[in-house]
Amino acid sequence: MLESWNDGPTKSAIVDFVGRAVADVPPDERVAVFDNDGTLWCEKPMYIQLDFLLRRFKEQAEVDPSLRDKQPYKAAYTGDLKWLGDAVTKHYQGDDTDIKPLVAAILTSQHEITVDELASRFDAFFADAKHPTLGRPYTACGYAPMVELLRYLEDNGFTNYIVSGGGRDFMRPVTARMYGVPPERVIGSSVGLAFRDGQLLTTPVPEFLDDGPVKPARIWGRTGRRPILAAGNSNGDIEMLQFTRGGTHPSLQLLVLHDDADREFDYVAGAEKALDLARSDDWVVTSMRDDWTTVFG
Amino acid sequence: MLESWNDGPTKSAIVDFVGRAVADVPPDERVAVFDNDGTLWCEKPMYIQLDFLLRRFKEQAEVDPSLRDKQPYKAAYTGDLKWLGDAVTKHYQGDDTDIKPLVAAILTSQHEITVDELASRFDAFFADAKHPTLGRPYTACGYAPMVELLRYLEDNGFTNYIVSGGGRDFMRPVTARMYGVPPERVIGSSVGLAFRDGQLLTTPVPEFLDDGPVKPARIWGRTGRRPILAAGNSNGDIEMLQFTRGGTHPSLQLLVLHDDADREFDYVAGAEKALDLARSDDWVVTSMRDDWTTVFG
Repeated sequence: MLESWNDGPTKSAIVDFVGRAVADVPPDERVAVFDNDGTLWCEKPMYIQLDFLLRRFKEQAEVDPSLRDKQPYKAAYTGDLKWLGDAVTKHYQGDDTDIKPLVAAILTSQHEITVDELASRFDAFFADAKHPTLGRPYTACGYAPMVELLRYLEDNGFTNYIVSGGGRDFMRPVTARMYGVPPERVIGSSVGLAFRDGQLLTTPVPEFLDDGPVKPARIWGRTGRRPILAAGNSNGDIEMLQFTRGGTHPSLQLLVLHDDADREFDYVAGAEKALDLARSDDWVVTSMRDDWTTVFG
Repeated sequence: MLESWNDGPTKSAIVDFVGRAVADVPPDERVAVFDNDGTLWCEKPMYIQLDFLLRRFKEQAEVDPSLRDKQPYKAAYTGDLKWLGDAVTKHYQGDDTDIKPLVAAILTSQHEITVDELASRFDAFFADAKHPTLGRPYTACGYAPMVELLRYLEDNGFTNYIVSGGGRDFMRPVTARMYGVPPERVIGSSVGLAFRDGQLLTTPVPEFLDDGPVKPARIWGRTGRRPILAAGNSNGDIEMLQFTRGGTHPSLQLLVLHDDADREFDYVAGAEKALDLARSDDWVVTSMRDDWTTVFG
């Protein structure tokens, strides 16, 4: 159990908490929520979904040359990954200048297709896309210690949900085989869907941006429960972690610290506030470098 | 199995379909969705949630006399149930004149309270509220044959969801004990929730009105699956029933017909279009009078 975790205070905190939960919390209420990008799988040098979208934007710019001077199509067409990475980091630091055109492009990138066709496009991407620097398939970019934690929790009667700022329907085709989390337990961002002739079609209207204070609201909407364990890695996970503390049961807040340039990446941008809160509010910070015997297994 | 169902074409259609599903459909994809009001529990002489809301409107009108001349507070204060029932029937017939002030009052009736306090209010209501004509507790107003159907489906590897136009959080405190459906499988209407100081608070802003074409969109959002069985009783269930037909698996559409004035109620208002479609599209119509040996068990 938890064999990819070094013995130490982080592993002890997890094991102690799970023991208390099993003793004190009815199984139905042992709900755990996990952010995905940077918590369960690698989010650098860019979100995996952003790689998918870049390929799509590039396709769109190839068909329509007028897009080539407009962001984010320009970045996608010229391979300017820095513009895109910065847009996201700036968002987490409170500056939404570049995220807005990016979101607009995302919303129109797959519209007017059925949810089945959408799933096929994502399936096709995951079938052969590889991480640009790690060289492994994206479906092998999940963190082995975190997958072990999911199994450990299940073995102790927990039900795990993914609660990601990433696309709900983007993650669903792979979460069962990567994490053992079925589609009905994947919460994420989405466009609205329109019903026509027996089919659900994507629209360009955002329905959820599942980030920050929206995460606890979506968790309640989906589960009707207050989780007792939440794991995240960025400022967008703060409210989800705080929500687990507002009840009467024991709870655990876990923050993944990316401090392992050799095996993964080393960064805190976009996680500064969360790390401050971890210190002041006694959340458990797991150091990838110190706590994990392996990253990808 | 299905002992409260008379032998006949309806029961045969259900048993035949379940047999085909077990043979042809992987267990994960055996998803069934059930409307609640008029499908799983009694909705006449008024929605059960409307009784809850009437009591709340009356409380509000007692505190604030200026509300007593305004609908729906006036109807609540004077006990004018007909105005309220008509508002809903007119809505299903396409006339939203009276439903609008009713919805506005609903949205502000419980705002700025935590989701835990909201659940407590609903618990308190269900602890002693009784059906006005049947004389039984509302928690005993579920249809025994439909509860048997839920169990029969589960025994055959199905997962059941409730997909109601009624309030998601209103139903959740009782669905587990009445139907064996836990909160995470209850889909319904809701106001938005705001996160503050570790707590989720109700707002007066509608988030979902889970009716008509919204039902399939919410089913997909929540489950990532296309159900293969849908049961409803009104025009608001049409799209949900149609959605089950759009895939490649065998599917069953079941419509509950209220034709039993002696044991329950006899009405088709608000279900006319659904009944027409049942005839033209070969949905299964279950007659409460002819198909059920008992209504409430």
